[in-house]
Amino acid sequence: MNIYADNAATTKMSSIAIGAMLPYMEEIFGNPSSLYSIGQQAKEALEDARERVAKCLGCSFKEITFTSGGSEADNQAIISAARMGERKGKKHIISTAFEHHAVLHTLNKLEKEGFEITLLDVHANGIVTPEQVAEAIRPDTCLVTVMYANNEIGTIQPIGEIGRVCRDKGVLFHTDAVQAAGHVPIDVVAQNIDMLSLSAHKFHGPKGAGVLYARRGIPLTNIIEGGAQERGKRAGTENVPAIMGMTAALEAACGNLEGYAARLTPLRDKLIAGLRTIPYSALNGDPEQRLPGTVNFCFEGIEGESLLLLLDDKGISASSGSACTSGSLDPSHVLLAIGRPHEVAHGSLRLSLGEDITEEQIDYIIESVREVVTYLRSISPLWKDLVSGKTPHILSE
Amino acid sequence: MNIYADNAATTKMSSIAIGAMLPYMEEIFGNPSSLYSIGQQAKEALEDARERVAKCLGCSFKEITFTSGGSEADNQAIISAARMGERKGKKHIISTAFEHHAVLHTLNKLEKEGFEITLLDVHANGIVTPEQVAEAIRPDTCLVTVMYANNEIGTIQPIGEIGRVCRDKGVLFHTDAVQAAGHVPIDVVAQNIDMLSLSAHKFHGPKGAGVLYARRGIPLTNIIEGGAQERGKRAGTENVPAIMGMTAALEAACGNLEGYAARLTPLRDKLIAGLRTIPYSALNGDPEQRLPGTVNFCFEGIEGESLLLLLDDKGISASSGSACTSGSLDPSHVLLAIGRPHEVAHGSLRLSLGEDITEEQIDYIIESVREVVTYLRSISPLWKDLVSGKTPHILSE
Repeated sequence: MNIYADNAATTKMSSIAIGAMLPYMEEIFGNPSSLYSIGQQAKEALEDARERVAKCLGCSFKEITFTSGGSEADNQAIISAARMGERKGKKHIISTAFEHHAVLHTLNKLEKEGFEITLLDVHANGIVTPEQVAEAIRPDTCLVTVMYANNEIGTIQPIGEIGRVCRDKGVLFHTDAVQAAGHVPIDVVAQNIDMLSLSAHKFHGPKGAGVLYARRGIPLTNIIEGGAQERGKRAGTENVPAIMGMTAALEAACGNLEGYAARLTPLRDKLIAGLRTIPYSALNGDPEQRLPGTVNFCFEGIEGESLLLLLDDKGISASSGSACTSGSLDPSHVLLAIGRPHEVAHGSLRLSLGEDITEEQIDYIIESVREVVTYLRSISPLWKDLVSGKTPHILSE
Repeated sequence: MNIYADNAATTKMSSIAIGAMLPYMEEIFGNPSSLYSIGQQAKEALEDARERVAKCLGCSFKEITFTSGGSEADNQAIISAARMGERKGKKHIISTAFEHHAVLHTLNKLEKEGFEITLLDVHANGIVTPEQVAEAIRPDTCLVTVMYANNEIGTIQPIGEIGRVCRDKGVLFHTDAVQAAGHVPIDVVAQNIDMLSLSAHKFHGPKGAGVLYARRGIPLTNIIEGGAQERGKRAGTENVPAIMGMTAALEAACGNLEGYAARLTPLRDKLIAGLRTIPYSALNGDPEQRLPGTVNFCFEGIEGESLLLLLDDKGISASSGSACTSGSLDPSHVLLAIGRPHEVAHGSLRLSLGEDITEEQIDYIIESVREVVTYLRSISPLWKDLVSGKTPHILSE
């Protein structure tokens, strides 16, 4: 059995997305900035895509900037807000301890420039509250940036409520919606979102395409200087094929959010219930306020990497957390942020389901994880110490 | 007859490039940072691509960073050199007056930060000399950035000689090779190039992919912060399909540079000779030190935009200069830099040929341009003033 259960890392492109790209790779290849027909056709497609993406988010096409992906959009949103703040003498930014590194590392860079960064606690359930945001806002706060859904544990933040707090206090609000877009409903107006980032390859679109939504009147700061593309705010020949693929994928996903949630949620909950029966395991993050397809567990006494390799042998593709930090020996900053100690955070497993997953496959995953965890514990000195009582258990049986 | 003669703006993807992309769009879609098989397959492909691209440039795979395109690579190269210089108290940068805006606008940004920028004159033939570079270098110069081939007029700079001067004086040398890569031979070691930018869609590869070559030991500054991709120097999930397409296209182009030049050069020269027979016209840039496929002319007494629209009616896709600045009413900074007055610079035409162009098509282009120029002059008040002697001719008959 082959089960791809790492959709939070990247997704397989849909035939809809590939079909939308191909004509712009093969035939309508013109530069959208060109005057002649084939260039103008590409430009019309681009502007049509901009309107369609805007519709999916509930905003105007004028508020959409196409980028090379979610990381670039996150960087540009935060840098833009920081430069706006700087001009008004406001150099305080509020975020959370479990943001994606595209946010955290950009904030680190700003901190070195003299910005003050407050990272809110996300509690054991992986959720930040609007009250925390309200308390942290100061007269010199220029930006609140809180991710829509966490990329490792899948918990969904109360974005509308946080947006309300920020709007009431007159502070810009950005959300990294890379894991959320195409998976849960988004309405930037109703949710008082000023800026939002998304990435196409997380919802069966192509790699190399993303969107930065910025509410009208928010001046963007370029992070790529050059030509006049994207109203002068993002230089470089527009990646029309990828943008067309992204747009088709986003429309398809947003047109089926209810069906998606209705189909995946019970399967996700079955998976959670099954994995919970493994002794000394724990679900990471709130059991309900989470993406329909994302599950993250810790297992005591094992190393996440071995778990992944043995699951791969069984045909299951999964991860220990963010793909972006693989290769690092440090435990996940997300799991540390929700209070998991180092030794437990090392034994994590993220399973992010695709819409085509079956109940039979869920059973297979549960049994495979149980087998592999049992085997790894049987050869683990860490586990031996736990069983003998030499080191105390952290998770309950 | 349909003739696409704007290959300097963008090219039609080759079937080789599309064929190289598709497997990574359809099947091997894994995230290269993932441990499981489908991720590792993508990672192996990515690292294989890095070696193949390095081979085309004559460098090591460790010196290759994949970006979203030429503009991003230009930005990152220049910012990296500036930050290196800053740390040593060196804040002077040398470039030329006719660089692409990805270079010029990045330099503008640095100027606002306190860098001093010297833009060298490129003379009437569109070429900067190594002697000019040598004279401009100061003890506080941290970077020389000179484009390999100009994007509007196609002139090729003496890159190896400029590289020699820079290396001898211990100054970093970057070249924007977006128009050159895949069109003329490049050897970064022999040419003493420290940093180089290229863009896939200029040589029949996909849009949304580029390369920054940086010689070993040159620390890159991130312009996109986040995940640990590209040795931590360019965050964001790697666009594996586009990188595979780019690599295949670059290899194909670099494997046929002699044949390409041998086929295109005589056709280009026939085009130049034909257009020169139109009265009051002038070739822009050196007749010989130019790309095999790029020709740029000025015609007195007409507006470039009308010329393009009427040529489009005749099935010829061409441009007045850079696609990146279209929509602007300002005359080309490149044509001003080679000394063309405003009124002449407005009547420019760039024809950038594809390898499949035929002699018959060249004849058709020449006749079409002659007809359209003649027609536009017949209705042009500017031309009337020139003919009546009210305003003097600038170009010769």
